[in-house]
Amino acid sequence: MKAARFHGQKDIRVEDIPEPTLRPGAVKVGIAWCGICGTDLHEFLEGPIFIPHAGHPHPLAGEDLPVTMGHEFSGTVEELGDGVVGLTVGDGVVVEPYFVCDECGPCKAGNYNLCTRMGFIGLAGGGGGLSEKIVVDARWVHRVGDIPLDEAALIEPLSVAYHAVSRAELTAGTVAVVGGAGPIGLLTAAVLKGLGVTTIVTELSAARKDKALSSGVADYLVDPSEEDVKARVLELTEGAGADAAFECAGVNAVLDTMLDVVRPAGVVVNVSIWGRPATVDMQKIVLKEIDLRGTIAYRGDHAAAIHLVQEGKVDLKPFITGRIALEDLVDKGFDTLINHNDTAVKIIVHP
Amino acid sequence: MKAARFHGQKDIRVEDIPEPTLRPGAVKVGIAWCGICGTDLHEFLEGPIFIPHAGHPHPLAGEDLPVTMGHEFSGTVEELGDGVVGLTVGDGVVVEPYFVCDECGPCKAGNYNLCTRMGFIGLAGGGGGLSEKIVVDARWVHRVGDIPLDEAALIEPLSVAYHAVSRAELTAGTVAVVGGAGPIGLLTAAVLKGLGVTTIVTELSAARKDKALSSGVADYLVDPSEEDVKARVLELTEGAGADAAFECAGVNAVLDTMLDVVRPAGVVVNVSIWGRPATVDMQKIVLKEIDLRGTIAYRGDHAAAIHLVQEGKVDLKPFITGRIALEDLVDKGFDTLINHNDTAVKIIVHP
Repeated sequence: MKAARFHGQKDIRVEDIPEPTLRPGAVKVGIAWCGICGTDLHEFLEGPIFIPHAGHPHPLAGEDLPVTMGHEFSGTVEELGDGVVGLTVGDGVVVEPYFVCDECGPCKAGNYNLCTRMGFIGLAGGGGGLSEKIVVDARWVHRVGDIPLDEAALIEPLSVAYHAVSRAELTAGTVAVVGGAGPIGLLTAAVLKGLGVTTIVTELSAARKDKALSSGVADYLVDPSEEDVKARVLELTEGAGADAAFECAGVNAVLDTMLDVVRPAGVVVNVSIWGRPATVDMQKIVLKEIDLRGTIAYRGDHAAAIHLVQEGKVDLKPFITGRIALEDLVDKGFDTLINHNDTAVKIIVHP
Repeated sequence: MKAARFHGQKDIRVEDIPEPTLRPGAVKVGIAWCGICGTDLHEFLEGPIFIPHAGHPHPLAGEDLPVTMGHEFSGTVEELGDGVVGLTVGDGVVVEPYFVCDECGPCKAGNYNLCTRMGFIGLAGGGGGLSEKIVVDARWVHRVGDIPLDEAALIEPLSVAYHAVSRAELTAGTVAVVGGAGPIGLLTAAVLKGLGVTTIVTELSAARKDKALSSGVADYLVDPSEEDVKARVLELTEGAGADAAFECAGVNAVLDTMLDVVRPAGVVVNVSIWGRPATVDMQKIVLKEIDLRGTIAYRGDHAAAIHLVQEGKVDLKPFITGRIALEDLVDKGFDTLINHNDTAVKIIVHP
């Protein structure tokens, strides 16, 4: 079968490799679509980062490079391994792409996204969504019902957003600020809207501002180059400040603003990945008793994310901005995301 | 009566001023003892900071300098204003030294320590504990029962520590690291111990290390100049990491360490006041899903703090390192705390 494999920095090859073999407790999935993630771009440009270096296999996946890439995928169940229940051949599914140890403190506490030896399918090994078939343990497979499989490829990043939102413990009728309208910022705003939270999105880029408004996920859009964000949020909240704010840019000025716009006893969730230390005015955290919370990936969030889409509370279609074939992964996928990253949201790949 | 009043930077005068007059809903308290707080030192050395500048009275207290200082005090109820119930002349008491508006969002949510116009008795106006008498609204007065009034003067900073600990939502049997064994670090460790939490205290100063051990508040003491704190905490927690960590130093290296020593999904509470921005490795917060939480003062914590002392779960005596008369406030109080700040913990003043 065809698979896009990472051999080294800027060296991803679409190759012919053997189909994976089914094992007990696992299912074989025929991949329909796979999204390209920012993590994949980082691996391409600067990796291997999460991908295991040659000679240093991942402790749970047991593989090193070359590995098949892709962890944001949807597909159809083609075969069931011994002992699998609750799934049927033909089911449309998505996958939580985890390797976890089930033995460490976080795993035992149910926080498997914080497993001390955690690995991702499509990075650590175990095949990937940028191929024709994959075999995955049934525990990680979620049925998507009538969600079209192109949209279903976005359930994985939507689950990242859902988990980030869950970290803020918001209820319907509250107000949240989303700092940055890249793919994760847009999906965070989409989840917030879906849960009945009023969203104020901050963004500089014209294309991203357009997308936040045209997709309907931003109730209000504030451009920090045109308006004082804190003053605008206070105006929109009758002086109270937002109940929560989500840093989705990995930019220090955005983090500063998120600390400024939340109300006393508010929550700031840091959703972005940082390449360098941030400067934080601790007095803002102290005097307003802010909770600054980290969030990474998801645990038990897929079912709720799927439900939001099935109920029509989140529409994923506006975020699919490109559809390409596996052969075009680098030329039309990575290159577009690197060179036109403000107009492209999510490019999905069909193997 | 005698009162120590702040007239300006390094200008605190013990003067004779009129006794405050009783009003409905308030009580007159004869001051027994008043502790000197780090905040008082900052006002003396660099103020006015929280003290209102001349011509700019505090919006709730309605006063500007000179103001009587002191907010960590105990005393005896001498007179009851009209309508006061639940207090009796002769009661030993302590006071939550607040001015709050009762109108803003935080006040309405019960978070009066985050009142947008909050002021402190002894800083914003309203008299202070560094005088012979004070009149305070009965709502802020807490009876201390059989706690000696010298020890009761430490209930205020103990309530700061209790509130900080409450922000971490710990249960008995968990493990916490306290970074820094100054007055607030020691009292934070004391509250943790009192609640059945195992305490690991980090500190460089020999005198403070001695106090943390001799007072019994540190189950384990780690000197970062002698040991790798993270390695030691992992060893003491069988590889898990601490459930919570408390930054009580206002030092960037200590904050870094607190982020390192907590387990995945752990809580870091920042208790200290920062004079400058901190550098924070956001990836630590992200990858372990740490909650970094601010804490300021207290709200509804006095009763629980008093109860810990009454039950014998916290012993405040080891933290009283000096007793002076009001006339000696600057010479024997402030000067000692400024020049011998590692041996002095809490100096209390008798008017």
